[in-house]
Amino acid sequence: MDYSNMHPQQVKELIRQGKITGQTSGMCNGYAQANLCILPKKYAFDFLLFCMRNPKPCPILEVGDAGSREIKAMAEKGDICTDFPKYRIWKNGVLEKEVTDISDLWQEDFVYFLIGCSFSFEAELLEAQIPVRHIQEGKNVPMFNTNIELKSAGVFHGNMVVSMRPIPHDLVVKAVNVTAAMPRVHGAPIQIGYPEAIGISDVTKPDYGDSVTINPGEVPVFWPCGVTPQNVVMATKPDIAITHSPGHMFITDVKNTQLKY
Amino acid sequence: MDYSNMHPQQVKELIRQGKITGQTSGMCNGYAQANLCILPKKYAFDFLLFCMRNPKPCPILEVGDAGSREIKAMAEKGDICTDFPKYRIWKNGVLEKEVTDISDLWQEDFVYFLIGCSFSFEAELLEAQIPVRHIQEGKNVPMFNTNIELKSAGVFHGNMVVSMRPIPHDLVVKAVNVTAAMPRVHGAPIQIGYPEAIGISDVTKPDYGDSVTINPGEVPVFWPCGVTPQNVVMATKPDIAITHSPGHMFITDVKNTQLKY
Repeated sequence: MDYSNMHPQQVKELIRQGKITGQTSGMCNGYAQANLCILPKKYAFDFLLFCMRNPKPCPILEVGDAGSREIKAMAEKGDICTDFPKYRIWKNGVLEKEVTDISDLWQEDFVYFLIGCSFSFEAELLEAQIPVRHIQEGKNVPMFNTNIELKSAGVFHGNMVVSMRPIPHDLVVKAVNVTAAMPRVHGAPIQIGYPEAIGISDVTKPDYGDSVTINPGEVPVFWPCGVTPQNVVMATKPDIAITHSPGHMFITDVKNTQLKY
Repeated sequence: MDYSNMHPQQVKELIRQGKITGQTSGMCNGYAQANLCILPKKYAFDFLLFCMRNPKPCPILEVGDAGSREIKAMAEKGDICTDFPKYRIWKNGVLEKEVTDISDLWQEDFVYFLIGCSFSFEAELLEAQIPVRHIQEGKNVPMFNTNIELKSAGVFHGNMVVSMRPIPHDLVVKAVNVTAAMPRVHGAPIQIGYPEAIGISDVTKPDYGDSVTINPGEVPVFWPCGVTPQNVVMATKPDIAITHSPGHMFITDVKNTQLKY
């Protein structure tokens, strides 16, 4: 089944029915995708402030009122509890389990945060004739923990997570330009070619997602990643948090072009 | 005394000493100015979300951690309690009094919000040879309540407040362009030439600030205004809120050019 040219509402219907539970890279070309973090309201101000102070890894797309599971701005209709292929439940900073629906876990004090995702700009990279390796290889994007300390806000603190794409050396400038125009889905890379400078010792061993081939003449390029909130949840240990499972995103009904400058 | 070419820290020293208690339009040319709203932490998430949903009237420049009165990002050093020429104390949505220092009113659960101010772009208008009438006349800018309903967030709701500048008809396009480049200090106008369309019946009778001369051939142009949160405080009635007094702003140490796209 080729999901790349389907409309987001068609794919999300399959996700709601539990027929798609895998990762969403390459689906619904041209439409923005989104990361998720859900927290009780007592944490919501600190977390929103954390995102505002760290807009590169945590660019806010939409935030719900306390208790509201309805997605309004980023989709025609959307339910935060059913529209991601896979969720992670965190208790006191420890991953408890993964599920495909969180309707029975929803609490009236929950606040959801939709955060921009670099999958959004992959269609733009492809359009610019820049290869996207994990799509070519049918894998999830490789993601790494880094030593880049983020600005704290209230109880929230932690380091940035990045996604990596190997880019042919003569296309790196183009890849920077294409992505820099889209700050609401992470924007420009944070590091080019020196993984050790941001605390990554082995680019073939990602902390999340899959390892991909880096060919001779290709440079590993690192973008801020929306898995960062999961790292922050592990560091901050809120009593409960729910995130998406890495790579298993919400596909919005908003085109990438609407999120450009 | 000509404050237009003084450095913000010099002017703020005079403000801290109580030697300047008037409005700040035209001071420290080239430096951004900021509006203020202070609320207890229990309201902070809803208010931050309100600002994010209404970025034209309420563009966030900096938000403090709960209990912190220190301004970090928008100034070399700054104290939210002393660095505005005049403050307004609101109880249950009613203006109680105006003061020039709020040190003795500060609470450990207070959160401050610095919001962009259209005074910031007036130097850019002047640079583009566009007259700014209230500066010419030595007055505060005229501000009006409107019928433009804002997106609500939690308990916060209300209508937009706008500032008005009369612009010669052949300079209106230029005024739009100059200000549109600065979305963090309100950006482009919200209305040009039809005050009645946004619920303003008499442009000579502002709800805040002073009335200014509109010459023949000039068009009243309306920009979203950072007094909007005061209107929202009146509508929402939090038990306590502190704002600046309209026109009596915080002068940041950040140049307008740093706030452009």
